[in-house]
Amino acid sequence: MTARTGRPTLAVVGATGAVGSVMLQILSQHADIWGEIRLIASPRSVGRKLTVRGEEVEVVALDEAALSGVDVAMFDVPDEVARQWAPVAAAHGAVVVDNSGAFRMDPDVPLVVPEVNPHAARVRPRGIVANPHCTTLSMIVPLGALHAEFGLSELVVSSYQAVSGAGRAGIDTLRQQLSLVAGTELGTSPGDVRRAVGDNTGPFPEPVALNVVPWTGTPDEDGWSSEEMKIRHESRKVLGLPRLRVAVTCVRVPVVTAHSLTVHARFEDEVTVDRARDILATAPGVVLFDDPAAGEFPTPADVVGTDPTWVGRVRRSLDDPTALELFVCGDNLRKGSALNTAQIAELVASEWEAP
Amino acid sequence: MTARTGRPTLAVVGATGAVGSVMLQILSQHADIWGEIRLIASPRSVGRKLTVRGEEVEVVALDEAALSGVDVAMFDVPDEVARQWAPVAAAHGAVVVDNSGAFRMDPDVPLVVPEVNPHAARVRPRGIVANPHCTTLSMIVPLGALHAEFGLSELVVSSYQAVSGAGRAGIDTLRQQLSLVAGTELGTSPGDVRRAVGDNTGPFPEPVALNVVPWTGTPDEDGWSSEEMKIRHESRKVLGLPRLRVAVTCVRVPVVTAHSLTVHARFEDEVTVDRARDILATAPGVVLFDDPAAGEFPTPADVVGTDPTWVGRVRRSLDDPTALELFVCGDNLRKGSALNTAQIAELVASEWEAP
Repeated sequence: MTARTGRPTLAVVGATGAVGSVMLQILSQHADIWGEIRLIASPRSVGRKLTVRGEEVEVVALDEAALSGVDVAMFDVPDEVARQWAPVAAAHGAVVVDNSGAFRMDPDVPLVVPEVNPHAARVRPRGIVANPHCTTLSMIVPLGALHAEFGLSELVVSSYQAVSGAGRAGIDTLRQQLSLVAGTELGTSPGDVRRAVGDNTGPFPEPVALNVVPWTGTPDEDGWSSEEMKIRHESRKVLGLPRLRVAVTCVRVPVVTAHSLTVHARFEDEVTVDRARDILATAPGVVLFDDPAAGEFPTPADVVGTDPTWVGRVRRSLDDPTALELFVCGDNLRKGSALNTAQIAELVASEWEAP
Repeated sequence: MTARTGRPTLAVVGATGAVGSVMLQILSQHADIWGEIRLIASPRSVGRKLTVRGEEVEVVALDEAALSGVDVAMFDVPDEVARQWAPVAAAHGAVVVDNSGAFRMDPDVPLVVPEVNPHAARVRPRGIVANPHCTTLSMIVPLGALHAEFGLSELVVSSYQAVSGAGRAGIDTLRQQLSLVAGTELGTSPGDVRRAVGDNTGPFPEPVALNVVPWTGTPDEDGWSSEEMKIRHESRKVLGLPRLRVAVTCVRVPVVTAHSLTVHARFEDEVTVDRARDILATAPGVVLFDDPAAGEFPTPADVVGTDPTWVGRVRRSLDDPTALELFVCGDNLRKGSALNTAQIAELVASEWEAP
């Protein structure tokens, strides 16, 4: 293992993707934490120059040489690439912070949200720390804060997921579809949107412009989708509640960036809206934005590009004094991916002592 | 009261609006039920000619003369117009079927969904029958069928509401906003959509293109919106369950027509997905469309222009054998407004005997 003094060397693996671009922005804002920063990507991006901390850095290929001498490696690559290369990086002595789905439910890999369970990042038998799925991350920080006070017992969640959750292809697909439907009378007769969009559905199973699509991911057990099960499993793991009741329905909406979710959260203890608002107003990483009469509630258009999870529409169930309703909104490319990954990497970097 | 023989005379009050247009289509499809059909609208539409049952009919103004001799009057007008004129029509002997919010919770006015509580339409002390709000109607038919079997005890609902729920102004606003955002890089930086849309938010509190807006209606008690409370009160009244636990979060999405909802429904009895699917597959007014692995789940783009409520994503809670998750989708201008109004009017018309 590298001597833990000085500034650690960081590798960004998958530096050229939608999430990678945001990682470079974030690294530029926190410029004094890292020593060398290496940018690594797939062969077709090798030789490209990207700007990080105000300097141009050339992208190199993912191989053993690139990983040699790396202290911390942030991975944002497909699951199968992570499965192959994260253990290689770990074997070279790097702590891997992985944003794929490959290791999240591995019992020897902690799943970390720094505002909720930072201690978990210190115990990493495989040298890997996993970053939760973007949809889990778009709600888990405020839920962690409320859980600490009231004891969470059940979640019923519906998502309003942005197309950038499916990467650049998702963004390009929505833009192409919007060009086809803008200025038309589409959306008023059966199948008109589908006919206009044709085969241009990109990574989505149905047109997403002028539409909502209640399916993300692949089929899992008993009619649930893989993303719905991820949110269930990951929420339980991050919150340390292996028996938490969780029911999720994932829906894609024609929004470019920022996932929203409605949350029905039931607690062990009775809740009050006033106390819940106090908790949310002071929780790190959370902005309470909740005065509908004054036009204050979060929407993706306002939240995009910001770091916190925004919470509005805080109500107590009219029938159940232990249940709260919330509307939460977070940038899926920042806290939902790049930012949380960077935060975990910085948690790990704090183990290095200044020389 | 008019002698109840022959074909009853129908008045359509509010014939030129978004819902009125769909009413005329539906009346043309059921051409043999009605005798005379009168089209009534606001002064600025008087003299316009609209086609119904293949014939041009001139729009007349809403006044006592226009209502005289009418047997059944379908009203689709603002609440305050309904509040003033529905009792006038009733005083002239008409049975009023009202699609406004003016009378829905009046204990002397039945709130009717023909597939769920048709008997209620026969008892109308004020001569008025109310049509539920479009969002309630977009889910209540399948829920009524499931309730009859399992006994409903709780609903947690999140909506994905189309802009046409706010009338022609809603549609025009989304179209205008889409023209502003199509072909741009909007949706990726803070406030960019808001700046592009400017003051062109029409009936909505925030931009709806490339966005979702967790607020519909006006402020009601304790942070709930008026539409959320409507869905709660109306579901209880239509289902005859005054103590049903109901928590709703209403969200507007950039879809032209067809409301969607995620529903977490808890029942008195244990449920099975197989039995729930049997019920939904055979319930009148419901289409079960539920095989995600084969790409089958309802979306607004496919449901627009159709009469039934479409149901997909049927799952049993993994933690609670009494709870089902559903995704439902219905055309808010058809079953959600015009169709249910016409169905109630036809229920009333069936009281007339052929000569």
